[in-house]
Amino acid sequence: MLAADAEIIAVGSELLTHQRIDTNSLYLTEQLNALGVEVRRKLIVGDDRALLTAAVNHALAHVGIVVLTGGLGPTEDDITRDAVAAAFGRSLVFRQDICDQIEDRFRRFNRKMAEINRRQAYLVEGADLLPNPRGTAPGQWIEQDGRVAMLLPGPPGELKPMFASECVPRLEQRLPPQVIRTRFYGVAGMTESELDQLISPVYSKYTNPATTILAAPGDIQVHLRARCATLEETERLFSEVCGPIEELLGDRIYSREGETLETVVGNLLRERGGTLSVAESLTGGLLGERITLVPGSSDYFVGGFIAYSDRLKTELLGVDASLIERRSAVSEEVALAMAEGARSRTRSTYAVSVTGEAGPVSASGAPPGRVYIGLAGPGPSETRHFQFPGDRTRVRTLAAQTALDFLRRRIR
Amino acid sequence: MLAADAEIIAVGSELLTHQRIDTNSLYLTEQLNALGVEVRRKLIVGDDRALLTAAVNHALAHVGIVVLTGGLGPTEDDITRDAVAAAFGRSLVFRQDICDQIEDRFRRFNRKMAEINRRQAYLVEGADLLPNPRGTAPGQWIEQDGRVAMLLPGPPGELKPMFASECVPRLEQRLPPQVIRTRFYGVAGMTESELDQLISPVYSKYTNPATTILAAPGDIQVHLRARCATLEETERLFSEVCGPIEELLGDRIYSREGETLETVVGNLLRERGGTLSVAESLTGGLLGERITLVPGSSDYFVGGFIAYSDRLKTELLGVDASLIERRSAVSEEVALAMAEGARSRTRSTYAVSVTGEAGPVSASGAPPGRVYIGLAGPGPSETRHFQFPGDRTRVRTLAAQTALDFLRRRIR
Repeated sequence: MLAADAEIIAVGSELLTHQRIDTNSLYLTEQLNALGVEVRRKLIVGDDRALLTAAVNHALAHVGIVVLTGGLGPTEDDITRDAVAAAFGRSLVFRQDICDQIEDRFRRFNRKMAEINRRQAYLVEGADLLPNPRGTAPGQWIEQDGRVAMLLPGPPGELKPMFASECVPRLEQRLPPQVIRTRFYGVAGMTESELDQLISPVYSKYTNPATTILAAPGDIQVHLRARCATLEETERLFSEVCGPIEELLGDRIYSREGETLETVVGNLLRERGGTLSVAESLTGGLLGERITLVPGSSDYFVGGFIAYSDRLKTELLGVDASLIERRSAVSEEVALAMAEGARSRTRSTYAVSVTGEAGPVSASGAPPGRVYIGLAGPGPSETRHFQFPGDRTRVRTLAAQTALDFLRRRIR
Repeated sequence: MLAADAEIIAVGSELLTHQRIDTNSLYLTEQLNALGVEVRRKLIVGDDRALLTAAVNHALAHVGIVVLTGGLGPTEDDITRDAVAAAFGRSLVFRQDICDQIEDRFRRFNRKMAEINRRQAYLVEGADLLPNPRGTAPGQWIEQDGRVAMLLPGPPGELKPMFASECVPRLEQRLPPQVIRTRFYGVAGMTESELDQLISPVYSKYTNPATTILAAPGDIQVHLRARCATLEETERLFSEVCGPIEELLGDRIYSREGETLETVVGNLLRERGGTLSVAESLTGGLLGERITLVPGSSDYFVGGFIAYSDRLKTELLGVDASLIERRSAVSEEVALAMAEGARSRTRSTYAVSVTGEAGPVSASGAPPGRVYIGLAGPGPSETRHFQFPGDRTRVRTLAAQTALDFLRRRIR
């Protein structure tokens, strides 16, 4: 049985600059905690072989699980393989099969593997290979004397699937059994402090389940994690805590499975056989971009207009030029005309429009943060207006999120 | 003279949860770098006396400067004073004058000092007191055998002024004088390994300037930092190293000042009095979103089309339906027709189009990652095609970045 404590070591001099932060360790901490593993230290080391070897030795002397991230690239700076081999007192072994796979990957993208990529085909002697379908650097898993070290690639898009599919199952086999169950709520239409004021009287009475609230602009995730000896106990605990939370949040909950708001909207459209178009001014394409991030979105999303200039609002969407002059482009009337123009020109079931003032300087006369969202569909057209806080990026993010939630409530 | 390298140790179990990140170290790194001090490691340790003592000992054995943050509060969890005293082999001394100051501070806020706050009046024997006008916990400065450890409070509002007013002057006295200058290149149109293969023969011969390469999809940042005794020496060093690097990278350098690619493109358009429109399929709005992220982009960006479905490519952009049928929507011919359609319908100087297969499943028959970019403007229209690696998000990101770079090279 492995000792249920861990150290996370992030490798890379770039993580020691003042612009960069190691965020992989947050994901890893969450995953390890869910397995009942306590993270005892997190370390960031630059590209220095001797320092890293010393750090790995130190970690192996203190904890059961050592997770290393980064430093698996092809350049001279990438020293994790060497340093870990030295810490274990093992050699590095060249593996032709790994090299062939890397070469294959380059070939698939019509490129030739550079000579330096051969470095990525070295494994610490006796290590398990952890396949990396998303990148060239494979991971490694090394066990010795009841301790384990794992080498994971730095890019989050490669690290996360590798940890989830390769490391979690191996760790589960080697750690004491626990029943861990989670509940999730995706919540739109309120701020983090509004949400916390509403539900903290419920959840703060409990340390088990542990409640975590993660907030992005206009989007809040509530995670509850229960750890018990039996499945029945977790279920009993959840019904006690989650029942009241669900009642308080009501239809502000858009997701219980972790789907994004754009995925939820897409699923509703697909179920109802509806199509969607957009007319974006303020968001400049952000709304379309989010909708089309979902694979298969072409089933319901036809496209739309980026009507950034007033001239294009008139020429592409048929918004009356005198209306823009009278009411300004940042107005309820223009939002409505944009949505209706997009719907009729694309012949979609629904059309959503966004116009507003992103700032920092007001071009329309409206205060920065003022946003109008229009929605056209079967039945009467609607608009809503908002005054969002924050800078340009935040205002646009809040506008896109709110437009999607407006759409969700209408289609539902 | 102090060795010009440092380790930053953040103390506190709350920093080992998945919701919290240590940001003090970013500020400290920036300040230390400006003094010519290299940060060699950053460590986060929970509230565990033995672990922290071991960590301080390890740090004192490897670097000249050890900065500890947090763990100076009044509770049992606050173990930094104890652990550092143990690491130096010194005792803790109660200081009535400090205790009186803390009591005074409480009195000023009309509160009574709790008994546990007496803990904050203990100093490591022989330490300098670092006053904390913003909080109760004073800092401490301990020197021994040409090494220094400093204990700083965790709250950024207390830590930053203490470091700036107390620690920086002490460090300046003890470190060799230095001039630090930086150079920056933003590079598009190549991968990290291609770039490294090209320029590492130049930069890897030097440890001063230090070269750091940061890569995002389709976008690479090269940072060089030179430290010398005089300004002339840094300039001489840069002309030696940066001259060849600039020659090798040529027009792939899009920025020397840190501007984003969309800002560079926007500035070129503004200088030349040109306007821009987009016709997006694959990217679904991402290109417009990036262009309009730049404040003032309405000076040159008129808007455009999200022509996601084939029908809208024909209806909105005038792409011949039989052409789409013959060549598929993911083709050079359609990219060209989309760009030309957007340009004529918006009457912009330039129009750029993106069509491609994002995956994971191919809808068009083209392999995921296949991307065509079209560009219409004064003079003949052009297209380029690419086979990008990675998942849906990466392919779209690479496509938008490449489209912006295509545009930059054309307008320039």
